[in-house]
Amino acid sequence: MKDSNLKIIPLGGLGEVGRNMMLYEYEDTAIIIDCGSMFPENDMLGIDYIIPDFQYLRSRKDKIRGIIFTHGHEDHIGAIHHLIQEIPAPIYGTPLTLGLVKVKLARRGMQNQAQLNTVHAGEQIKIGPFKIDFFHVCHSIPDAVGLGIETPEGLIVQSGDYKFDHTPVDNWPTDYAKLAEFSRRGVLALISDSTNATRPGWTPSEQMVSEALEKVFNQTQGRIIVASFASLISRVQQVVNAAVAHNRKIAFVGTSMVENVEIAQNLDYLRIPDGTQVSINTALELPEHEVVIMCTGAQGEPTSILGRLARGTQRQFDVRKGDTIVLSSKTIPGNEEAVFSTINELFRRGANVIYEEIMPVHVSGHGSQEDIKLLIHLTRPKYFIPAYGELRHLKQASILAMQTGIPEKRVLVVENGDVINVKKNKIKVQGKVSADTVFVDGSWVGDLGPDELRDRTMLSRDGIVLVHVNLNNQGSLHGKPEITSRGFAASQEAEEILSKLVSKVIDTVKSANGKMERDVIRTVKDFLYKETKRNPTVLVTVSKI
Amino acid sequence: MKDSNLKIIPLGGLGEVGRNMMLYEYEDTAIIIDCGSMFPENDMLGIDYIIPDFQYLRSRKDKIRGIIFTHGHEDHIGAIHHLIQEIPAPIYGTPLTLGLVKVKLARRGMQNQAQLNTVHAGEQIKIGPFKIDFFHVCHSIPDAVGLGIETPEGLIVQSGDYKFDHTPVDNWPTDYAKLAEFSRRGVLALISDSTNATRPGWTPSEQMVSEALEKVFNQTQGRIIVASFASLISRVQQVVNAAVAHNRKIAFVGTSMVENVEIAQNLDYLRIPDGTQVSINTALELPEHEVVIMCTGAQGEPTSILGRLARGTQRQFDVRKGDTIVLSSKTIPGNEEAVFSTINELFRRGANVIYEEIMPVHVSGHGSQEDIKLLIHLTRPKYFIPAYGELRHLKQASILAMQTGIPEKRVLVVENGDVINVKKNKIKVQGKVSADTVFVDGSWVGDLGPDELRDRTMLSRDGIVLVHVNLNNQGSLHGKPEITSRGFAASQEAEEILSKLVSKVIDTVKSANGKMERDVIRTVKDFLYKETKRNPTVLVTVSKI
Repeated sequence: MKDSNLKIIPLGGLGEVGRNMMLYEYEDTAIIIDCGSMFPENDMLGIDYIIPDFQYLRSRKDKIRGIIFTHGHEDHIGAIHHLIQEIPAPIYGTPLTLGLVKVKLARRGMQNQAQLNTVHAGEQIKIGPFKIDFFHVCHSIPDAVGLGIETPEGLIVQSGDYKFDHTPVDNWPTDYAKLAEFSRRGVLALISDSTNATRPGWTPSEQMVSEALEKVFNQTQGRIIVASFASLISRVQQVVNAAVAHNRKIAFVGTSMVENVEIAQNLDYLRIPDGTQVSINTALELPEHEVVIMCTGAQGEPTSILGRLARGTQRQFDVRKGDTIVLSSKTIPGNEEAVFSTINELFRRGANVIYEEIMPVHVSGHGSQEDIKLLIHLTRPKYFIPAYGELRHLKQASILAMQTGIPEKRVLVVENGDVINVKKNKIKVQGKVSADTVFVDGSWVGDLGPDELRDRTMLSRDGIVLVHVNLNNQGSLHGKPEITSRGFAASQEAEEILSKLVSKVIDTVKSANGKMERDVIRTVKDFLYKETKRNPTVLVTVSKI
Repeated sequence: MKDSNLKIIPLGGLGEVGRNMMLYEYEDTAIIIDCGSMFPENDMLGIDYIIPDFQYLRSRKDKIRGIIFTHGHEDHIGAIHHLIQEIPAPIYGTPLTLGLVKVKLARRGMQNQAQLNTVHAGEQIKIGPFKIDFFHVCHSIPDAVGLGIETPEGLIVQSGDYKFDHTPVDNWPTDYAKLAEFSRRGVLALISDSTNATRPGWTPSEQMVSEALEKVFNQTQGRIIVASFASLISRVQQVVNAAVAHNRKIAFVGTSMVENVEIAQNLDYLRIPDGTQVSINTALELPEHEVVIMCTGAQGEPTSILGRLARGTQRQFDVRKGDTIVLSSKTIPGNEEAVFSTINELFRRGANVIYEEIMPVHVSGHGSQEDIKLLIHLTRPKYFIPAYGELRHLKQASILAMQTGIPEKRVLVVENGDVINVKKNKIKVQGKVSADTVFVDGSWVGDLGPDELRDRTMLSRDGIVLVHVNLNNQGSLHGKPEITSRGFAASQEAEEILSKLVSKVIDTVKSANGKMERDVIRTVKDFLYKETKRNPTVLVTVSKI
């Protein structure tokens, strides 16, 4: 049974619609756009990272004939090593994007498992019924593209992450001509980045960061340490440019930073004049006014280079009095406390710390309200589908679209798993497929769900109290119950209260008929709540001896 | 042995210097300024709230002759019920502040344990060698004051939380005359709020919020639900004013909101025209365009009214399609995820949600950079001591002070516990007293420390695996070890891997010589890490039978 209409399904993004993955399906062919990973939220305890749920993809496995990447940031490529184990379809992307994908696969010894096809911005590829134009967009990484996807049911433009920047770091503006061409051909739907839909005005140019860096370099005598994301290649170029202009050498620290710099340099997306880059060991021996160090950790992660500098546990070097430390990246929501505590620690160690609140040392790579409206006017879509945002961003982007004149009924707010059906120039949202997220914790993928997270949350709140009971052949208590705890109370207090508990547990075991474990749990919980107003997890184990 | 100099010591604030408490000591007399509580940070697992460490106060107990409150927000009064149990000194504050203190004490049946002394803004009190002027400042609660503390060593001005607002809700501007008088008398040191020291310009007037509310009320047909802090009495007045202007009735929901509204009304700090306030049950039966509901929960707390509305678990009423919900308070750093997820859920239920990012429905009650500079010029202090901020705020406030002309050596950045010594018109920071914070969890205060929090963090990351071993008289294994887990892995996966573990534990017990528990822990940890790359807490209990 064939589906003769086009289906577009956002499949990944932890509440941000389609940010990590979108699927396009038409008859026997399906293509995947992006396959990224996400940071866990603060209440996803112990989770390392999150990937899209591949359940629906599995059901379409034989149809999937391509995986297309829009750019090389983690939230768009970060789950590829999981995906190609199940769906080894050919991969398409621009040179830098594929370079970064290769680094990621190589780290896991998987470099030979993927079939990588380089597509330059401006080129078109054909996959079954889909003709896909890669068009250049400005973003905080070079070689980013949006996609014009010509389907039998019409032309869909998916923006990718973008902003309009007339003075980008690589002097390569958005491909306005291609957008105009789409507009001439007639765009059925624009699926647009709406990350910054709540921000009024335009997102400033990266130029603003160059100016702020220039100011920092001008006023600084000592060492300069810049922390950012390893994948913010444009930012690396800006810091390199400032270093060159101020006769400083630059050293990169941190595996991912070093690897990304190397690949971007090899592919000529990052230009470092000969003699400018030095090893960290060389940098540490140079006079302070001749040094820039660039590293990761602008999110305050305790195990990152900057996190360890703040805590004094970095192996290679320490923060010195007189260092100027620049945090040049946005704070991902939920990381504010960690970032601010890192900043405070760095100040405490005598550094001067410069961050976005104080100086514009970071600008967003995503378009604000006016950028979004401009993209709408440039492409003149019949339908507008906001994506890459939480529901609140999509709602706000919808308002913007209506302000530009798109009627409300042709502005579609969808969530992950919603099926966007396109047929005969009409679009309807109908049907829902599984589009949960999958937790990765350690080497295991996907075993953890809400129940286990609830257990971890309970454990984290008031700890755990363990009761072990030995029963003899007759089913009566042998010896005293062993009661111990972890994370419930400070040790002395815990010992006192748990010792009071022993006789209550003994009484309960003696008087229990049948449901001894349940009764013991109740006794323990009630007693501890009455005494402490705490509610630890209680676990009872029984040995029959 | 007498100290013949003045000591000023910031004692509470979880990294925010002196926000919750300051101590002034001179010879035989000491006074406490404020005694507030703080929200725990995200990594303080299970902690209900945080209070200042009273350890140093205990050593000064006989000297302490007064507790003075600057205003009625939780971070300035929230720990009073803990303090007066140990230090029953007379309490001083303005009428509204004491009203809110009374509510707090009454909730715990402690209303008769405190000796409350009303001081109106503009009045002076004398405690031993201290002459203390209460001067009115604008803040997001009425009846807030700063303090001019005349000491034998000079005049210290402590700002309290403040901003300059020329059009405050209660039409009561900051007491400029008193500040001018201080300036004439000569201010030795200004201790200033620096919460917003990183914000350029002026903090806008509360008037801006009234205008935004006016806009919301103008464009809304359905019900309006405003969520805020219960102690943001000025905001309540603004919502009441908008309700009156638009012929809507107002209902308050939530115990703390209802109690605070009542006390503020009784004391005439909140004016609600007769017939405007209705019960929530009445409100639910009125036509939608005649209703405003005001409640707590703007921080996204799951158990607050708004949190329960977002999750559909509020007993009395549900969000309806067409409701307009206004979040009118700042998001406390660390709560961003919870707030945004609440907003998304409310959108999902069909409400229109208005929050600070979209419209200025909240302004800060703390002065920005220009406010801080104005306070410096108004008081012309010899020394400037920034307070009420993290180290990064204090550093930024110092820069502002130097910009106004105060020499660097007279700008003192201190941290909690630092002793500020004032003698003969000179100030030196010398000495350190204990000024940790104390965790309150359940009904127990202060038993938990870093060790227990580390245990809870470990438990939260990868759960716990429990091994129980029975040993017979000869010290050899009796029966099979019992292994169970919580929060470690999904149940099926956990069962499989733990069953594999049993034989390894048996081998370890058999071959152990002396340090059996330690060996078992090592075996279990190594095996589980190898198989899962997870690192659960492992607990071994032993019964001798």
